[in-house]
Parts: sequence; structure tokens; C-alpha cells
Amino acid sequence: MEQLQVIRTNQPKHKPNEDELGFGKYFSDHMFVAEYSSEKGWHDSRIIPYGPISLDPSAMVLHYGQEVFEGMKAYRGAEGDIILFRPDMNIRRMNRSCDRLGIPQVEPEWLLQAISKLVEIDHDWIPQRVENSLYIRPFIIATEPCLGVRASQEYKLIIITSPVGAYYSSGLAPVSIYVEDQYVRAVRGGTGEAKTSINYASSIKAQEEAKRQGYSQVLWLDGVEQRYIEEVGSMNVFFKVAGEVITPELNGSILPGVTRDSVIMMLKHWGIPVTERKISVEELFEAHQQGKLEEAFGTGTAAVISPIGAMKWEEQSIEINGGNTGEISGRLYDTITGIQQGKLADPLNWRHLIGKL
Amino acid sequence: MEQLQVIRTNQPKHKPNEDELGFGKYFSDHMFVAEYSSEKGWHDSRIIPYGPISLDPSAMVLHYGQEVFEGMKAYRGAEGDIILFRPDMNIRRMNRSCDRLGIPQVEPEWLLQAISKLVEIDHDWIPQRVENSLYIRPFIIATEPCLGVRASQEYKLIIITSPVGAYYSSGLAPVSIYVEDQYVRAVRGGTGEAKTSINYASSIKAQEEAKRQGYSQVLWLDGVEQRYIEEVGSMNVFFKVAGEVITPELNGSILPGVTRDSVIMMLKHWGIPVTERKISVEELFEAHQQGKLEEAFGTGTAAVISPIGAMKWEEQSIEINGGNTGEISGRLYDTITGIQQGKLADPLNWRHLIGKL
Repeated sequence: MEQLQVIRTNQPKHKPNEDELGFGKYFSDHMFVAEYSSEKGWHDSRIIPYGPISLDPSAMVLHYGQEVFEGMKAYRGAEGDIILFRPDMNIRRMNRSCDRLGIPQVEPEWLLQAISKLVEIDHDWIPQRVENSLYIRPFIIATEPCLGVRASQEYKLIIITSPVGAYYSSGLAPVSIYVEDQYVRAVRGGTGEAKTSINYASSIKAQEEAKRQGYSQVLWLDGVEQRYIEEVGSMNVFFKVAGEVITPELNGSILPGVTRDSVIMMLKHWGIPVTERKISVEELFEAHQQGKLEEAFGTGTAAVISPIGAMKWEEQSIEINGGNTGEISGRLYDTITGIQQGKLADPLNWRHLIGKL
Repeated sequence: MEQLQVIRTNQPKHKPNEDELGFGKYFSDHMFVAEYSSEKGWHDSRIIPYGPISLDPSAMVLHYGQEVFEGMKAYRGAEGDIILFRPDMNIRRMNRSCDRLGIPQVEPEWLLQAISKLVEIDHDWIPQRVENSLYIRPFIIATEPCLGVRASQEYKLIIITSPVGAYYSSGLAPVSIYVEDQYVRAVRGGTGEAKTSINYASSIKAQEEAKRQGYSQVLWLDGVEQRYIEEVGSMNVFFKVAGEVITPELNGSILPGVTRDSVIMMLKHWGIPVTERKISVEELFEAHQQGKLEEAFGTGTAAVISPIGAMKWEEQSIEINGGNTGEISGRLYDTITGIQQGKLADPLNWRHLIGKL
């Protein structure tokens, strides 16, 4: 493994007010960059001041979208530790995404070191408030300057970090969603299970429609029958029906979320029944009619747990748990964020410490 | 409409040998760039020397793939004209693609002027040989530096041009394809009918598999039933069955190709029956068994007409028209390229002249 070159900025930026962080609006002082060529493999790893990158206008990513990314967070632990949450899961998924997109994989240990070193150098950018964190965005883009439709022979791996606020500054706030029956996010045989720009660009139109109709997210149905529930917005989704927690099974078009996996593991750890299986939207609304739909929530790195308080499908609008955060949703949120922030015990060994502050 | 600023290069590049053009490997001396912001709309149009662009590493296109593009060609006419082929079709489609991707549309006349002016300035880059041409690639990318998943508020429109060779330097050469029954290109409700990077990134893996198995392209089936034929590689597809030419009807997941439309119009002009409808892969292979499958060909801007000489589906391999270019395929190729190159009459008024050489 070659030596990592570090060039520190001599113009550190002013840090934003922690009240106004939002999501992905501010970026720290440094970024990690590495290059790939078919001859040299991944090479020229460096941490340099955050700033614009130079791309040929024919760089393949700008035309044929060969790109993968990841999203994870660094937390300021109570004992002064810098904490990552299950980074091995993100790195493994990134390599699976690479495989789907025809992008060369990366050495997991090398990527983890790159992330750790970058966060260490910019540790002042990890917010002070316990509910805030430093969002980490590794991504790979195809950079070969050529308009042929094929896999690029050159890539850039870049890692940037962004101090972000809690999704819910005043506690968990349930959202309203509507069942999308026109647009489709992904289909089996497509790229739904990869974390790639592709799956997000196609959802923007649906998201805008949802907002226009007063909903904050859409519930995605499968692309084949438009009947089975897949995800909510850019999150995985869970339902509690008659005491059992259910989430759509990974079928090739659903993103295998790290928070999704953590929720399943934690529920099992607690002895709460949890099942991964197909769930049709009919079944869900029927369960509601019968008074059995007790909770619904989305899971993702940004929000961790996002309770769903209301749902609309065609002409039916329903309220879930009186529009309030459910008991399990709240408990999962408190527990997972507590582990991430180093406040609670870590029974499943999820924390990865990368240094002391 | 603001004034178009022109800054000419003082370091014109060496032009490549016309034998070695290939596709999209060389770029002319200049490019067109314009910016979009929600306050100003499209602004700051300029033609500048071709060169790298500067993007924030958080530019939305690199994360959520909000991008659209077009592909068209400029030809050196026999009479010294610079000829575009139906540019209004590409511009209209670009605006439809923008709409699907949540990108602000462009004023068609403004874009046509931008293309025309750029080609005029770089007219020396239009290859001399009649079978070569100058490929024109307009594209729009989301440039707002933000990691929120939503429509960008800032964009760049860029036009680059590339001298390209004929796809078939030694005449039309039929290709072999195989029916893809694992990967899916697009599904109704998705982005299949938009010209966006999204649809291409997902196809790279399938394309690599095809090559590995000795086929040059894949035949895409619909995403719902994986039964109906949609496209071939990155082209539309036509079949001649018992004297009738058939092409899959535009169903929302098929790209509405300009060459596709031109082929349909020309066949009608000739009085040859042509139908747009659903075609299942079973129907096609059955037609072959009955000796009725007479020709097959792909259509697209790069190759114009690409005859299909052999096809494989599951365990069945078939040869079409003895593996040779069919009569209609050849006639369409000669006629459409003849019109594009200004050698033949233009009965359907497809040529758009933008100046004299």
C-alpha cells in the first residue's frame, strides 16, 4: 500500500453555526482523492484541501452515469472518542455497488483507513452537539474522456465530509407519505440494490409531486406488479402489524440499508418478532382496517428512524398510531442514536473507534 | 436573448487522422457553456476553448445523477453546406428529458443557435470524408453543491463536438446479439424514454457480459414481463416479418429515437408497410421458425442502421437473412446517410443548413 500524502489547508474555513447545519450544505476543510487507471489500479491517494475538481467535459460520469456512493456518519463520543457506525457494512456495500456498475472495487482496509484519516484530520468539524454528526460521503466517478458507451478505464474516488444537523431538531416528527402508483424507482434486473446516483435521479420527479400534494415522501412499489412495498423516499421501511415487525425482503431492487440491518438485529436482540417478506399495499391497508397496523417507520443514515404518521393510497387516507411516534420507533431511535453517540452500551459491537478527540 | 460571448482558442489542436477517428475519442477546439440559476434562468452563454470544467465535489450530478444529453451530427455537404439532421427533434426530446429529470427546459431556438454557432466556429473539424461526421453532444448537469436529495437549483449546459468515423468503415457489417433475460434496462414509470445517463450506466454490466459471450449487443426486454422486445444495445430495433416492418411501440420505457422516427417516415414514404406495436421475443423466434423473419436492424445516431445477422435467446441461436445485410436495411442506410451527407434529394425536409464551408 502506497503512502497517503497529506496536504493541509492554510485557509481553514469558518465553521457554520450548529443551529443552521441542515443536511449536506457545508463541507469540511479537507477531502480525500485517489485515482484509478487500468494500468496502475487505485493510486495517488491524497488528502488535500476541499475544493473544486477538474473534469474533462467528456468525462464518462457526466454522460453515462457510472457512479457509486456511500453515506455514513462520524460521532463525537461522550468519552472523547471519534465513533464510526458499522463502516465495514458501507464499505462492503460500496464494493457490491461497484460490481453492479462495472466499476473496479476498492481494498476495504485501504478505504477504511482513508475515511479514518480524513475524519481525524477534520475532527474539529464533528459537531459539538450530541444530536449532530459529521456526514461522510465516499463516491467513485468515471473520468475517462470518451463518449463510447462502455465501462470507463479511469476513475476518481473522492471522500468529502459535511457537518449535519439532526433530522428532527425537536424530537421525532412523524411524516405523511403517499403511495406512488405512477413512477417506479427500480425493478429487478435493474440497479435498485446498488447505491448509485441512478436510483436517485429517477425519483426526483416523484418527490416533487409528493411535496406539491403536501406529502413529505413517496412509498415506492415494486416495478413489476406495482403492488408490493419496496422503500419510502430514500429510506427502507418497516411496519408493525399485530405485534410483529415486517419489512420488505431484499429482492434485488431494494437498497440493503445499514440502518435497516441494524434495526432487524436490534429487534431480534430484544426478542421482538421481525420478518423480512413481501408486503403488498393491499395487505397493509387491510391490516389498518382491522386495527392491526400499529406503527410504520423509515430507516436510513440521515434520519436514522423516521416515523410515518399518515399514508395515502389512491382514495384512502389513513392515520397510523394517531399520527404519533410509535413505541418501537421511539425505542429504536433512542437506542441506535445512543449507541452511535457513545451514550449507551454497544451489545452488538457496532461502534468503530478511530481515535480520541 | 443575451449576446453570445465567443473566446477563440489561440492554441488550435492537431486534428486526428481520419482513419483513426473511432467514436467520441477526439474533441474539437471549442465548446459552448451556459449556466442556470433559479434567479437568472439560463445565462452567461459563451463559446470558449475546449477544456476541463471545474465542479464542486458535492455537485449534485456526481451524487444523484440529474443529467440529460443529446446526440446529433453535422455533415459536410457535397455543395459545401454544413448540414444538421432534424435538430428540432433532438432539441424537443432534450426538453422532454429535462422534464422527466426535474431539470429546467431550454428555449429551443436559443439551443439551436448555440449548436449552429459552435459548429460554424469549429467547421474545420467536420471530417472531409463523406462517411465521417462531427458528432455533437449537448448535455445538462446539476451543479449545485449540496447533498440533499432534491432537484438542483443550479445547472450547466455544455455542448462539445467530436469528429467521428463511420461505424462501418468497410460497409454495413451485421452484428450478433443475444436476448438479455437477467438485466433490465428500463421499466414503465422509470426513465427509459428520457435521454439521460441513468439508462446507460445500468446497461454497462449487461454489455460486458454480451461481449464476454461473443455478442456485440444485447436485446432488451420489457421490465415488467421480460417478454416484449424494447431496444438493442443503445439503439431502437426493427424487424421485417413477412414483408411488414415492425418496431416496438413507444411505451414510456423506449427511447423515441430520431433515426427510429426517420426510418418509419421513410418506409411510409416508400409505401412499405410499417407498424409500431408490441412484439414478444416468442413471436419473433416463431416467425423465424416459419421462415418469415426476413430482416432485423438497429437504428441510432451513431450507426444510423445496424443490421442484425444473428440472435440468441436462451438455447436457441438463429441466423437472419443468411447473416447478411437485408435489402431494406441497406436501402435505408444508403438513403438516410445520403440525405444526411447532402448527396440525395431530401423529400421529407430533414436537412437543416447552418452555413457554407
